[in-house]
Amino acid sequence: AQLALERDYEVQREFDTRFRVLLGSMAEPVLFVSVQSGEITEANAAATTLLDRSRDDLIGNPLMSCFETRKRGDLVEALTTLAISERADGMKIELRGKSKLVQLAPTLFRAAGERILLCRIVPDDDSGLKADNLA
Amino acid sequence: AQLALERDYEVQREFDTRFRVLLGSMAEPVLFVSVQSGEITEANAAATTLLDRSRDDLIGNPLMSCFETRKRGDLVEALTTLAISERADGMKIELRGKSKLVQLAPTLFRAAGERILLCRIVPDDDSGLKADNLA
Repeated sequence: AQLALERDYEVQREFDTRFRVLLGSMAEPVLFVSVQSGEITEANAAATTLLDRSRDDLIGNPLMSCFETRKRGDLVEALTTLAISERADGMKIELRGKSKLVQLAPTLFRAAGERILLCRIVPDDDSGLKADNLA
Repeated sequence: AQLALERDYEVQREFDTRFRVLLGSMAEPVLFVSVQSGEITEANAAATTLLDRSRDDLIGNPLMSCFETRKRGDLVEALTTLAISERADGMKIELRGKSKLVQLAPTLFRAAGERILLCRIVPDDDSGLKADNLA
């Protein structure tokens, strides 16, 4: 049982490492958001650069704080609905204080009993949403 | 101890889920490669689309099989050296059978005692290597 436990730790660390390396290396800005709280739970380097905010300043703060939204309070709800609809397009939205339009492309999933939104931030004029811009 | 074990499984599953969702959603094509064997250990949907090969056909096969390489056998070694040098640019290389130049941007890390290369496949004319093309 001790050996099995140690193997589990190995596997767990391996997944954690792969996740961290992938998140940190990718050029696409992404944010992970808790559906329940609306707060950012993870942000990669590309996102901190784009939003011009440190990781510490993003994590634990509302997703809403990154964007200009007219409709207060239901940005995460709207993104959840969009994710469930599985439409290919994202939500057009303006970066707060940047006068820059982007698209938020949400993916909904459940981890450790919590609903999480993965939000990719895609340039509004980009074909990145289709994930086949190289093909 | 049983409770601790169950908690570990939860955490492990959570990291695995986040890794899988991130990998599957991102628009950038990426491959994970074992440095020791030179074989692909993971490929995302964007990579299977770009390379026009199924995930099953990629995993377990040599990274070299995806590219036109003059220097046989040392593509993974060259990528490892490039990753260690921490230069910002990738390796210019041609997709096999596609007559298309791309850049391979490698990141080296260790997981579960094995050295792994994360290889992002970036369009040769793209600024994706700098990860600040939105800033």
